[in-house]
Amino acid sequence: MNTRTLCALGGALLVGGTLPALADEGLWTFDQPPLARLDERYRFRPTPQWLDRLRLAAVDFRGASASFVSPAGLVLTNHHVGSSCIQKLSSAQRDLMKNGYLAPRREDELRCPDTELKVLHSSSDVTGAIQAAGARAQDAETANRERKTAIAETEKRCEADTKLRCSVVTLYHGAMYHLYRYHAWTDVRLVFAPEMEVAFFGGDPDNFVFPRFDLDIALFRVYEQGQPVRPRSYLKLARQGVKEDELVFAAGHPHSTDRLFTVAELDTQREVDYPLHLASARRQQRLLHGFGQQSPEATRRAAQVLFGTENWLKAMLGEFKTLRDPLFQQAKRSEEAKFRELATAKGNSEDPWAVLATASAKHRAKAKEFWAVDYGYRTLLKAAGEIVEIAHESALPEGDRLSAYRSAELPRLKRRLEADYPIYKDLEISRQAGYWQEARDLLGDAHPFVKTVLAGKTPREAASDRITVSRIDRADERRRLLAGGLAAIESSQDPLIQLARAIYPLRRALAKYQEVEIETPSKKASQALGRLRFDVFGRELPPDATSSLRLSYGVVKGYESEGTLVPWKTNFAGLFARHDAFDGKPPFTLPANWLGARGKLKSDTPFNFASTIDIIGGNSGSPVVNREGEWVGVIFDGNLEGLGNRFGYTETAARSLAVDSRAIVEALEVVYRAKALTAEIRGE
Amino acid sequence: MNTRTLCALGGALLVGGTLPALADEGLWTFDQPPLARLDERYRFRPTPQWLDRLRLAAVDFRGASASFVSPAGLVLTNHHVGSSCIQKLSSAQRDLMKNGYLAPRREDELRCPDTELKVLHSSSDVTGAIQAAGARAQDAETANRERKTAIAETEKRCEADTKLRCSVVTLYHGAMYHLYRYHAWTDVRLVFAPEMEVAFFGGDPDNFVFPRFDLDIALFRVYEQGQPVRPRSYLKLARQGVKEDELVFAAGHPHSTDRLFTVAELDTQREVDYPLHLASARRQQRLLHGFGQQSPEATRRAAQVLFGTENWLKAMLGEFKTLRDPLFQQAKRSEEAKFRELATAKGNSEDPWAVLATASAKHRAKAKEFWAVDYGYRTLLKAAGEIVEIAHESALPEGDRLSAYRSAELPRLKRRLEADYPIYKDLEISRQAGYWQEARDLLGDAHPFVKTVLAGKTPREAASDRITVSRIDRADERRRLLAGGLAAIESSQDPLIQLARAIYPLRRALAKYQEVEIETPSKKASQALGRLRFDVFGRELPPDATSSLRLSYGVVKGYESEGTLVPWKTNFAGLFARHDAFDGKPPFTLPANWLGARGKLKSDTPFNFASTIDIIGGNSGSPVVNREGEWVGVIFDGNLEGLGNRFGYTETAARSLAVDSRAIVEALEVVYRAKALTAEIRGE
Repeated sequence: MNTRTLCALGGALLVGGTLPALADEGLWTFDQPPLARLDERYRFRPTPQWLDRLRLAAVDFRGASASFVSPAGLVLTNHHVGSSCIQKLSSAQRDLMKNGYLAPRREDELRCPDTELKVLHSSSDVTGAIQAAGARAQDAETANRERKTAIAETEKRCEADTKLRCSVVTLYHGAMYHLYRYHAWTDVRLVFAPEMEVAFFGGDPDNFVFPRFDLDIALFRVYEQGQPVRPRSYLKLARQGVKEDELVFAAGHPHSTDRLFTVAELDTQREVDYPLHLASARRQQRLLHGFGQQSPEATRRAAQVLFGTENWLKAMLGEFKTLRDPLFQQAKRSEEAKFRELATAKGNSEDPWAVLATASAKHRAKAKEFWAVDYGYRTLLKAAGEIVEIAHESALPEGDRLSAYRSAELPRLKRRLEADYPIYKDLEISRQAGYWQEARDLLGDAHPFVKTVLAGKTPREAASDRITVSRIDRADERRRLLAGGLAAIESSQDPLIQLARAIYPLRRALAKYQEVEIETPSKKASQALGRLRFDVFGRELPPDATSSLRLSYGVVKGYESEGTLVPWKTNFAGLFARHDAFDGKPPFTLPANWLGARGKLKSDTPFNFASTIDIIGGNSGSPVVNREGEWVGVIFDGNLEGLGNRFGYTETAARSLAVDSRAIVEALEVVYRAKALTAEIRGE
Repeated sequence: MNTRTLCALGGALLVGGTLPALADEGLWTFDQPPLARLDERYRFRPTPQWLDRLRLAAVDFRGASASFVSPAGLVLTNHHVGSSCIQKLSSAQRDLMKNGYLAPRREDELRCPDTELKVLHSSSDVTGAIQAAGARAQDAETANRERKTAIAETEKRCEADTKLRCSVVTLYHGAMYHLYRYHAWTDVRLVFAPEMEVAFFGGDPDNFVFPRFDLDIALFRVYEQGQPVRPRSYLKLARQGVKEDELVFAAGHPHSTDRLFTVAELDTQREVDYPLHLASARRQQRLLHGFGQQSPEATRRAAQVLFGTENWLKAMLGEFKTLRDPLFQQAKRSEEAKFRELATAKGNSEDPWAVLATASAKHRAKAKEFWAVDYGYRTLLKAAGEIVEIAHESALPEGDRLSAYRSAELPRLKRRLEADYPIYKDLEISRQAGYWQEARDLLGDAHPFVKTVLAGKTPREAASDRITVSRIDRADERRRLLAGGLAAIESSQDPLIQLARAIYPLRRALAKYQEVEIETPSKKASQALGRLRFDVFGRELPPDATSSLRLSYGVVKGYESEGTLVPWKTNFAGLFARHDAFDGKPPFTLPANWLGARGKLKSDTPFNFASTIDIIGGNSGSPVVNREGEWVGVIFDGNLEGLGNRFGYTETAARSLAVDSRAIVEALEVVYRAKALTAEIRGE
């Protein structure tokens, strides 16, 4: 029986303000690591040097995570994190996703078309300046604009002063602002990728599942001026692998958690957003499966986006399960009641909960439009939309822009649009038609957006007619339009640019409504809640994740699930046992080199392991390090129980999953015979 | 996600009277096999010869299942079915449970103290005679007595005429009665038992779980007049093992299902009985764990009853999960509403549902007394109680007896009481004290039962004082009392016999209340429902299980569970992988001979496999046969999802689990080097 309890969730609250000392909860900033908690529970106090070494080795890999693992700029991440590059380097003739890749020599390392990696150089607290900008305003909307302007100015000034990439990070829903400065590199080359079959053994069925048997890793190298970079810090391979109950840490870039959501916000998620998004994901999954059934090449073309869709779907299913869990709901209701009571006792007279309830009601009313009135997820039309929006938005003052287009964000966005990689128009047409069919089903034929995009045609015809003749799939055309600014946009005859011009005002009106009516009051209320939390519970509280660098910790540990015990680790013997149990049928197929190495691989080598480290999407690729700061594995997934981490951390059965360093080294040596690479990783 | 649906459950009903053609549901009698269903779904029509061969090879092993697998009387069953014998043959010096046993020669085969095996020789329909006996009566209570008398007379006459063991089996809740005639043997000897560690690898955590890795088998031999019996039929080993999707059959003795329960009855189970029984099982589990912690010898003594308790507890947890499943409840409510509607349309004017609701309410009111006012489960006091009750009840006319004491049942019961095996008084005292503490908690100190058993002492004192001086643990004393009848009982100074004499009237009054007020009207109403079912849905409907021989069928198949895929089979590689993943800690320890044979065993040998065969408790040990009637495995468990089978069969994720014949042969050859035995099984 799964006796999961929400041990940590209401912990801090239900005991009346003391710390939940027994929970490994928290996605902590490196500025404010949980020193007291670590000391209390594990008698371990990381030094500033220990923290700096880890922070400077931790890499932001296109919004996910990675780390430097050699003095020559070698970067370790997950295969599924590196796959956007691997897919773009692939073609029908050279399918690196399927067949993997090992660069025989440095000069054979393959440059990714559009990959930027970053390392957090330093940070400082700018809460005072940003909040002061907002405080001068008469109303919430103006305050919001003033804060946005102040954030953009701070970032621009920082970039001018330091030549680093700068970004203001919002913490505790605006109760705190930090300025982060990054080293950034754009010359990133593929060194090693295993075959998809072993990187993602078990496929979608085994995704978010443990026991698990995935070599979900890839190795890249960062170059600067044509030479491998020498990073300020890198992680050394642990000489001993992890043991059960050992304290371990992860450094990564968790996207977002919603642990401070009020009951009204959670209700909206459960009743409106998740059902809507789940239906959309299922629709896209069906569409992509159907597309792939046309031919092996169609399967190859759809592979990466199908992976992303199924990954998103399964993650949502896990989160939705938590949202619907009566125990979870009860815990959240108790937590909120207790918090309100304590806040009132401290003299609070505001009612941010009511403000958030009103905002939630407004969101509910427009949720379908917010979802459907868009260009599509990473489609060609989306690229056209971004080109159009960059031209328009960058002409506006910072405070008036849609937040995706503030100055600090533009270079990354442009670089992605300018990069050259294969785009498959048959796949584009299918996906775009799918989005429009969904919009039609959600909004009806009379909605202005549906009228605009379909213009009386079927979704398939409308998509086919425009995408077939569009030239936005060519990098040189995208570069020309980006360089040409508004004038180039206005004069373009490209049907996708023309359509994007028509969609943009509809989308912007909705975005502005969302910002003014929902986001601005919500932010203000959430910020008030953040301050109240500090008042009531003190300062050592973990902030919600916001895609910035975080430190989390936990212990290596199995768990109980559905009436049985799940071990803390798997091994190569288990990989082959599962392969055989399914007679090697997909997705339990193994590449020939693995089957050939079966007798040579040490069968009890720990392959994947589970720990209580607090993670969420974006942590993929995070290095796992021991007390010595040496790496022992790389995070690649969480289990289904762990998906509820989005809304509340639990230790009972929620687990982060990592590839064990011993399996990585053993596979590189025995299966891939990658001598130079293993020597580099071992520091020999 | 577990998307279990109750596909078959309401199937027959919700489609308005046609057969649920796509479900492998049913625990069928050999008189009325599901020929049309098998033909429709699998294009397979077993011949009468095929059915006879299987029936005559199927063995009733003390209420569980087994089969003849050689012409020299070799019987295959589960280790956990044979363990009552194995435990009784064990001692602190020779622990056959822990160390296993392989008889080097025939003369080393060890006779079980009290094991009786039976084979169903023939059967005939006696519905007319039994129902006619009831029909002459004025009221329900008299009718019940008349039927009981008719059943006992029929059995006695049959035994006198045929010299076989005879038993009237109630089918469809009394809508049908069959007379079953059995060959019975009492000279049963242990040939082979593996070590508990591999028979029950994974222990309680892996119980009712798949993937699974258990050699849960034991081999016995039946003797007659000192010579191995030559059975009328035995099963040949399949030359090919099973394949995925293959049609397979099981013949066994499922104890009981409650698939025809009304909503009122299910509500009572969910709200009253399961919570009561679960609490009791947990209490006993804690007690036995505590007992075992005293010493390794205490652990050994408590092992078998602890296994039984944990097995019962986990089974109830699975069943309770189904009872609480909103989907299940909804399906049952719809089914009942539809059935009532169809029955009314057919002209039915009775309301058996109301009768059952009234009976349920009476049960609720006395549920705690029904549960607690007893001697205990297989305790020494229970033996004393049975000795007292045999003396009293056998003096009564058949129709007035408690049904456990009708003539046909007495020989088996007496044989068990007369058998000689070790009884551990320290364990007896702990368990009996536990029962009495529970009775006190449930009924209160003022209850006559509690007053009687405690007599002012603590449960521990009361149990210790009586058990310490009792001589009922000696087989000769039990035999003397059984032979001496009422006179011996009345004059006995044994404190357990004296106590049993005091408990007997309390227990009998409750049993009679239960019979007259609840069972009799319920039976009549259930019988009416059974007839209505025939009227509405026709005759090819599976009856509920009632511990008699049944045929069930299904296909070898994996399933989806908790978001991932479960393969249809496991293998030896998986056994060692799981052992390693837990570093061989209990309950994932393996015996030295298995670890030594690791390199020699064929690692992809199918070990355990899953199928959709409909089973329930009592099916343990059932042979699994293919279309040729050859054995391919032996049922030993169901998965957690399958425990809901008690209340309604499903195919989505409910699975029966079997040990594969290939693993049995491979293990006997490679690990145990049992050449003569494998040759005998192979028919060489």
